[in-house]
Amino acid sequence: ALLSLLEDIHYADIAEIINELNEDEATYIIKLLNSDKTSDILTELDDDVRESILGNLSAKEIAKELDELDTDDAADIVGELPKEMVQQVISKLEDREHAKDIVDLLRFDENSAGGLMAKELVKVNENWNVLTCVKEMRVQAENVTRVHSIYVVDDEGKLKGRLSLKDLLTTSTKTHIKDVYISKVDHVNVNEKPEEVARIMSKYDLEAIPVIDEIGRLVGRITIDDIVDVIREEAEKDYQMAAGISKDVEADDSIWELTKARWPWLLIGMMGGLGAASIISGFQEALTKFPVLLIFIPLMQATAGNVGVQSSAIVVQGLANDTIKGAIWGRLGKELLLGLVNGLALAFVFLIISHFGFKTTYLESIAIGIALVTVVVNAAVIGTFIPIFLNKRGIDPAIATGPFITTSNDVLGILIYFSIAKVFLGF
Amino acid sequence: ALLSLLEDIHYADIAEIINELNEDEATYIIKLLNSDKTSDILTELDDDVRESILGNLSAKEIAKELDELDTDDAADIVGELPKEMVQQVISKLEDREHAKDIVDLLRFDENSAGGLMAKELVKVNENWNVLTCVKEMRVQAENVTRVHSIYVVDDEGKLKGRLSLKDLLTTSTKTHIKDVYISKVDHVNVNEKPEEVARIMSKYDLEAIPVIDEIGRLVGRITIDDIVDVIREEAEKDYQMAAGISKDVEADDSIWELTKARWPWLLIGMMGGLGAASIISGFQEALTKFPVLLIFIPLMQATAGNVGVQSSAIVVQGLANDTIKGAIWGRLGKELLLGLVNGLALAFVFLIISHFGFKTTYLESIAIGIALVTVVVNAAVIGTFIPIFLNKRGIDPAIATGPFITTSNDVLGILIYFSIAKVFLGF
Ligand SMILES: [Mg+2]
Ligand SMILES: [Mg+2]
Ligand SMILES: [Mg+2]
Ligand SMILES: [Mg+2]
Ligand SMILES: [Mg+2]
Ligand SMILES: [Mg+2]
Ligand SMILES: [Mg+2]
Ligand SMILES: [Mg+2]
Ligand SMILES: [Mg+2]
Ligand SMILES: [Mg+2]
Ligand SMILES: [Mg+2]
Ligand SMILES: [Mg+2]
Ligand SMILES: [Mg+2]
Repeated sequence: ALLSLLEDIHYADIAEIINELNEDEATYIIKLLNSDKTSDILTELDDDVRESILGNLSAKEIAKELDELDTDDAADIVGELPKEMVQQVISKLEDREHAKDIVDLLRFDENSAGGLMAKELVKVNENWNVLTCVKEMRVQAENVTRVHSIYVVDDEGKLKGRLSLKDLLTTSTKTHIKDVYISKVDHVNVNEKPEEVARIMSKYDLEAIPVIDEIGRLVGRITIDDIVDVIREEAEKDYQMAAGISKDVEADDSIWELTKARWPWLLIGMMGGLGAASIISGFQEALTKFPVLLIFIPLMQATAGNVGVQSSAIVVQGLANDTIKGAIWGRLGKELLLGLVNGLALAFVFLIISHFGFKTTYLESIAIGIALVTVVVNAAVIGTFIPIFLNKRGIDPAIATGPFITTSNDVLGILIYFSIAKVFLGF
Repeated sequence: ALLSLLEDIHYADIAEIINELNEDEATYIIKLLNSDKTSDILTELDDDVRESILGNLSAKEIAKELDELDTDDAADIVGELPKEMVQQVISKLEDREHAKDIVDLLRFDENSAGGLMAKELVKVNENWNVLTCVKEMRVQAENVTRVHSIYVVDDEGKLKGRLSLKDLLTTSTKTHIKDVYISKVDHVNVNEKPEEVARIMSKYDLEAIPVIDEIGRLVGRITIDDIVDVIREEAEKDYQMAAGISKDVEADDSIWELTKARWPWLLIGMMGGLGAASIISGFQEALTKFPVLLIFIPLMQATAGNVGVQSSAIVVQGLANDTIKGAIWGRLGKELLLGLVNGLALAFVFLIISHFGFKTTYLESIAIGIALVTVVVNAAVIGTFIPIFLNKRGIDPAIATGPFITTSNDVLGILIYFSIAKVFLGF
């Protein structure tokens, strides 16, 4: 009954159900269903759930699942297996050609075009004629769910161009491929970063893109469904980083998982708060002579935090989309100007409200106003500089937005505030 | 020379170049190139750049561009035209069928499946036989760049299922479509939200999805390239919202544009800061009797802000991915517990550091520690509650993360801090 019920459900839906079950139930279902369905289910499961299920399967059982999968998905699963299992599973694969392809893919970094590509594609030699071509294609196409394009290679396997199915069918069978193929074809290098592949495929509206190795040989193909996953995961990761969550977690993960992901930034934020406390303690005289300064601490801190996050978010996105052109100094200059405009406007609003609402003296108002402008400009510059700096160092700039910027601006903001107040009020 | 240079460049690349030019140069290039290329360029341009170029073209010139475009892109452009131009441009379209399709699409909300779909698709009647089918398909396929699937409809135009090209070619020409089509086909309603369409297409790895109207009739088709754009734009928007940037801006936009986008949240943040200032003023006695309380204001505020943003980010993502199951109370209970765990851990660290580093008395330490735990729990609950509440009201919960949560937590955090300190220290 359960069997016939599950048979009508899409594998992606079954995966969602299994994600919510315990290990025994999950393993039971995977063993119950046919491997042409369970293999697809496995690729869609949460990493942790898949790991625990695979732990309950024999090398032979895992090999049977992998035989059903495309090489990219199979390689991903093999890559997650414990080292001692890998050899065993691979030796038990039935299709030896498939096994060879999977092993080929294992050597690529997960975070590269090579780690995303599949070996399934249709390619023809430029020296063949159309007839040979059609025959060969029939064989190759059996393993490929969606053909998209037919790639043309030379005798050394180098990518030369592509061919549409329509061209092939409307050309005389004796024509050489050399004379009909389109030599312009978008492609990516096997070492390209996934985000760059995503940018190219989305810019040129591609559904599949061929991947070449260092010497131009066609080694695989990336399809848009996998790139859609890359885009979504990348966006989630960046969003979480901006919110100060350091690992990939979901709302329904355990409290322990969620705490681990949040704790580092909370601690850093706390250290920032304690740093600010030390700074304030260092200005003891202010506590007694100008108590009004203290009530505006939250204002300085909130403003510095907001400006810093805004500036860094724009820069982080610009870096990701490759729209930040020109020198770093131009960028910093622009943010400086922007900070000045925003800071002056905020200070103006502040002067009016503080004069009427908080009865500050003129001197106090001016000191706090100038401090506010300085804090805003500083926050804008820091917010711009840190992501650009991290990016130059090869560190993902997305980590900069959020708590990192907020914390450094908290501390610096308080320091600037009291220093400027001291100069003006002379305590 | 310029002409032959640009002819070899992909339209998406030319669009990037034009985005950087001034209005005259941009218009010059659009007028120079052939409309089969410029039409594609137009769809890729920034909204503001496109608007200014179209302002320099006659109704006839615009119509010529639209004749080259797929109906979805053409409708998008028509939708941006000034009202008095729409009628004129439509009346000048050469292909009347195309014009009718574009007008059909205009009535759909941009933010719905109807606003994303194109009229270009291949559909056959279930009562036809394979021969009629193939003939009809040939005609229809001329307007469709990528066929993907052949959709099957009944006499009333209702979507019944789909057919693969392979099935069609391997079946006898007299067979009725009724007897060979696959009756299961993923589809979306014309009123579905773009984000939900994206979720479905990415979950089921679809490259195209048919769209049906309220009574089940096939009215259009959405392709994955447009969904990739939706996913990217949505992610950018959410990221900017979380960073307190209220309009869709880019790093290279003008200072005025950037200021407009940032100013609202800066002002709200400032109001929060001034609110906190009022609260602190209300606890005047504390300023004199327990000055040590004041130095930990930044700590309270930073922690409240961080916790609130973390909680809301997880909830916002969960809502977007549809992974938040169960009642709102369960969710709140979990965040409460999580806040308690994090709050206690932070308070523990605080007690040690404040005792040795800031020489606080035991009573002060305990009061501040308890306030810290309360502030954290409160921030977690607020961070969870606000996005869920907004979502229930039909407001995009993404607006909640970032400055909105930070500001409310700033004010509430300070209030809680001083209130609890007052209870314990009795000033
Ligand atoms: Mg399969
Ligand atoms: Mg891989
Ligand atoms: Mg695109
Ligand atoms: Mg497009
Ligand atoms: Mg794949
Ligand atoms: Mg990134
Ligand atoms: Mg999980
Ligand atoms: Mg539209
Ligand atoms: Mg998918
Ligand atoms: Mg997939
Ligand atoms: Mg389209
Ligand atoms: Mg959203
Ligand atoms: Mg722009």
